[in-house]
Amino acid sequence: MVRRYLSVITLDETLALLAREFQNIPSVFTVPLEDAVGRITAGPIFAKYSVPEIHVSAMDGIAVMSADTKGASEQNPVALSRTARLNTGNVVPPEYDAVIMIEDVWEHDGTYTIRKAAAPWQHVRPAGEDLAESEMVMPSAHRIRAHEVGALATYGITQIETITVRVGLIPTGSELVAHGTRPKPGQVVESNTVMAKAMLEEYGATCTRYPFVEDVPEKIRHAIQRAVRENDMVIVSAGSSAGTKDFTADVVAELGEVLVHGIATKPGKPTIIGRIDKKPVIGLPGYPLSALTVLREIVIPFLKNFGLPVSEPAVIPAQVTTAIPKEVGADEFVLCSLGKVGNRWVVSPQSKGAGVQMAGVRANACLRIPRTSEGFDAGSVVDAHLMVPREEAAGALLITGSHDPVIDYLADLLRPRGISLLSTHVGSMGGILALRKDECHAAPTHLLADDGSYNTGYLEKYLPGTAVDLLCIAERQQGIVSQDGLALADLPGRTFINRQKGSGTRMLLDHELKKAGIDSSAIPGYDREVTTHIAVALAVKSGEADAGMCVYSAAKALGLPFVPVASERYELAFRTEHDGDPRITALIEAVRSPAFRTILERLGGYETTETGTLRTGGR
Amino acid sequence: MVRRYLSVITLDETLALLAREFQNIPSVFTVPLEDAVGRITAGPIFAKYSVPEIHVSAMDGIAVMSADTKGASEQNPVALSRTARLNTGNVVPPEYDAVIMIEDVWEHDGTYTIRKAAAPWQHVRPAGEDLAESEMVMPSAHRIRAHEVGALATYGITQIETITVRVGLIPTGSELVAHGTRPKPGQVVESNTVMAKAMLEEYGATCTRYPFVEDVPEKIRHAIQRAVRENDMVIVSAGSSAGTKDFTADVVAELGEVLVHGIATKPGKPTIIGRIDKKPVIGLPGYPLSALTVLREIVIPFLKNFGLPVSEPAVIPAQVTTAIPKEVGADEFVLCSLGKVGNRWVVSPQSKGAGVQMAGVRANACLRIPRTSEGFDAGSVVDAHLMVPREEAAGALLITGSHDPVIDYLADLLRPRGISLLSTHVGSMGGILALRKDECHAAPTHLLADDGSYNTGYLEKYLPGTAVDLLCIAERQQGIVSQDGLALADLPGRTFINRQKGSGTRMLLDHELKKAGIDSSAIPGYDREVTTHIAVALAVKSGEADAGMCVYSAAKALGLPFVPVASERYELAFRTEHDGDPRITALIEAVRSPAFRTILERLGGYETTETGTLRTGGR
Repeated sequence: MVRRYLSVITLDETLALLAREFQNIPSVFTVPLEDAVGRITAGPIFAKYSVPEIHVSAMDGIAVMSADTKGASEQNPVALSRTARLNTGNVVPPEYDAVIMIEDVWEHDGTYTIRKAAAPWQHVRPAGEDLAESEMVMPSAHRIRAHEVGALATYGITQIETITVRVGLIPTGSELVAHGTRPKPGQVVESNTVMAKAMLEEYGATCTRYPFVEDVPEKIRHAIQRAVRENDMVIVSAGSSAGTKDFTADVVAELGEVLVHGIATKPGKPTIIGRIDKKPVIGLPGYPLSALTVLREIVIPFLKNFGLPVSEPAVIPAQVTTAIPKEVGADEFVLCSLGKVGNRWVVSPQSKGAGVQMAGVRANACLRIPRTSEGFDAGSVVDAHLMVPREEAAGALLITGSHDPVIDYLADLLRPRGISLLSTHVGSMGGILALRKDECHAAPTHLLADDGSYNTGYLEKYLPGTAVDLLCIAERQQGIVSQDGLALADLPGRTFINRQKGSGTRMLLDHELKKAGIDSSAIPGYDREVTTHIAVALAVKSGEADAGMCVYSAAKALGLPFVPVASERYELAFRTEHDGDPRITALIEAVRSPAFRTILERLGGYETTETGTLRTGGR
Repeated sequence: MVRRYLSVITLDETLALLAREFQNIPSVFTVPLEDAVGRITAGPIFAKYSVPEIHVSAMDGIAVMSADTKGASEQNPVALSRTARLNTGNVVPPEYDAVIMIEDVWEHDGTYTIRKAAAPWQHVRPAGEDLAESEMVMPSAHRIRAHEVGALATYGITQIETITVRVGLIPTGSELVAHGTRPKPGQVVESNTVMAKAMLEEYGATCTRYPFVEDVPEKIRHAIQRAVRENDMVIVSAGSSAGTKDFTADVVAELGEVLVHGIATKPGKPTIIGRIDKKPVIGLPGYPLSALTVLREIVIPFLKNFGLPVSEPAVIPAQVTTAIPKEVGADEFVLCSLGKVGNRWVVSPQSKGAGVQMAGVRANACLRIPRTSEGFDAGSVVDAHLMVPREEAAGALLITGSHDPVIDYLADLLRPRGISLLSTHVGSMGGILALRKDECHAAPTHLLADDGSYNTGYLEKYLPGTAVDLLCIAERQQGIVSQDGLALADLPGRTFINRQKGSGTRMLLDHELKKAGIDSSAIPGYDREVTTHIAVALAVKSGEADAGMCVYSAAKALGLPFVPVASERYELAFRTEHDGDPRITALIEAVRSPAFRTILERLGGYETTETGTLRTGGR
């Protein structure tokens, strides 16, 4: 049976429907004071008693009867016959009506002398000065801040009624295994309800993850019935699409009604909104980035209707580095890398694959392209919605170009200094072009010119007249990775996995093939492209290809034989104009650090003689 | 013995000293994935296996050999002899190299027909597409975001090494009782370490509150020794000042060294910074707002040195409504109410009393006045540091003027609508003046003119030419509160507690005394002022005064006899120009709501016939 979506509606219509069709009454639950930070009060909170309940001293000093102090001055010190030594907070005995600070008192043989008269009630904290019995400490719907916990303790409040939304999360799918279990082929680690719990609880929801449910309608039915009974809202993870085992919509229709099946967003289309016993039941798509989008754009905004505060993300106008074409009809959400190059913000889209969960880890911003839009042109300025604090985005170091595993290690060295290194793998030529447009801070590159020089020739050609510096990471080995120790000459007739056009590795391969007189058409799979060294090695390890070309460290990481083909100069190119940028300075320091050399040696295949040298790369 | 501070240094010097004198190495602790949100990674995290580990289908559809599909078109449908039905995520069997979406397939008797050729590897997620075995998921010093928990689950990460700072919190003071216990006279609820734990843990510290320690040097010594052993940093609450029982500095000097005693901040001066076994030991002042200031301005910024991220609060330039004079020498911190009146932000200081913990609850912003400054002039534009999200500050409704307990109930009705009602009690005249300067949204007022009219006469006098609307809250009763049913005529010779000059209640009292021919000089305590009705009632209840004048609801709240003196019109005045402001609209709706009438009736002493009526108040 081929299933189709029932009815696709827009995101705006979906949010309006959620607000309209449900009562959205939060649950009240009582938390001890210690757990109250960030919670929303369910009702007003009143002081249990006055603070202070009786007059106390506001200072370390002596209690006096103000009348006794009249006339005291520098010329006319007065020795007081009746006083009481008090520390801050001590009760002022009823026979006194003022306190004199200890600094203004001279003691001799237990008698105190003063040189200034005391005004009645000076330095006395009257009963109720802070708050009086019966007064309201905070109203309903108030978000409790950390420091307020101290005030609540003072006013005798130890249990607080707060609001929440109880959300039942049901993971469905016969292929699921729990995190911590290594999935067998075809199995998947259940991560969507783990993510949903973390995301929704950040906004004050209380989530229950139910046991995994197989793709059996009867079992799904029981799980949903139980979750609806025990929660204010239910989210069924996966089974919301049109596969042969997608039963969520049918079960929801049977137990209640399906209001929406299919929302015009990308990713996130296969979403269900149903109602059972007046409660919302949401079918979440299975792809992690689809689930992330639906949680962020639909479920979290929906929590606002229950009284939980949800802030809009901060927005930074930024220039998109590449065109993002799109069909009219759906709201589209694109995970991005955002950073500030010179004085302008630039933003680059990540991979769009909804299965690439790393895109959510790498992204620090998100673009929202409205359903009426045909997308963004390269260079246009658009709103980037922040996924990190603003200062973290401002500290982003954008690295665009050739991939090497050591770039991640540079990120690891820089992050403790407050710099987020965000790398985009577009190959050496892609990096040079990004540098030309001044859209990245540095471009890792290893491009061999006909004269045998690395990088400088291409920079002179593509960035004529622009001063560029080259920071050498290392001379690194490229070679053939295989299961059985193949060399370049063995490639004809063996299935191959290649790198993308424009990558330095591809160009080096072509150069070496030409030198060896090997025709690429004799290599099956020459046209099959991946974008990283490790992906090449993995294709070989998984048996998809017999051989590929990559750096030594990638072959070593996966325990595969490696036969060297050539050594090349892997450098970071950056515009000299950004030389004083603290991020560039930190990058140079990281490359030159002993810690980085140790990493290069451990990974293997890197000759470090030139590591950290700077040279002019073009003009 | 009179103690003095050892050495007072500036805030900047203090922060530099903390960064310089300590190693500031964080602790590493392992958290389960479920508790990882907001934590900072202690080292890089690597994928435990590739995701996916084997080629899987990216779509619901059928697996095909792409070669079999060649030539398929609308005109030339191709029936496929070998296929496999797959759902998203299913393993693509090795004999196939592409997937066709189910929407592009026509099924008949188990055979699939297609109308478009499939490209090799289309809709196939290759092994490692998301992440390959050995790749870095996230670097050191990375703050784990909620959605990333899903990715970590997918990559097999269930335990995460994160950094923290272990902080031992020692409450000292023989007067302390635990929260939940009603303090006896002279006792104090221990709230500073409760607050410190909540505040510091928000930034990633791990706090341990130790048992209360009496003011006995030997006991304090043992507590500090234990806490230093078990933590990276120790905070001793109270005992840091110069009272007879302030032993912290002596004990720290004995066990290690005192680096600082006294910091030039206000509040927060009596702070100690010491070192024992190379670890920082901080003596926190006992006053809650002093402790809050030291935590916010010194301890939390210090956490940054350990690698915990601390964001600077957002800043909004705002006009100060009153002068804030200050002596040169100390950095001063003033808790404030911030809001937007018309198109400009205005900010008003709260009470400066360091014992008034409610000031921290009421404040939504803080001013920092540098030590070199002599303070701010009224009307000058200064930086307000936000203590709430920006949109919450933007939704603040500033109410300045006469106090009545019902204002808090209006706050309770408005807060769920996203509006924070912030009231400043400056009496009716103060409210009229704030309205004249357009520094509040509405001014509660009950001012009797000589002609017997309420409010309109004063508005015409003080805001000539300005259109003002008056929203009636209620006709309310004022009267004499006492322990034994005193009436106005009984006042001479009885101790009295009065309201501040400029308050409507004070003016009403004077009017009534004059009418009754009573001379205020015959009333002891006539000059003793408090600023709220409930404070008047409390002074009577505590025995400080025999009588005072207040509204019925305040006497009733404290269970005291009340003898009516007069009824008056209690109204909210607002400038007509702000009429369309959604906050004003919501305020009018709240006053007119049945819920508010119910509250007025329950509190008692309010005649509601006129409640919610609007009239013109001046021109």
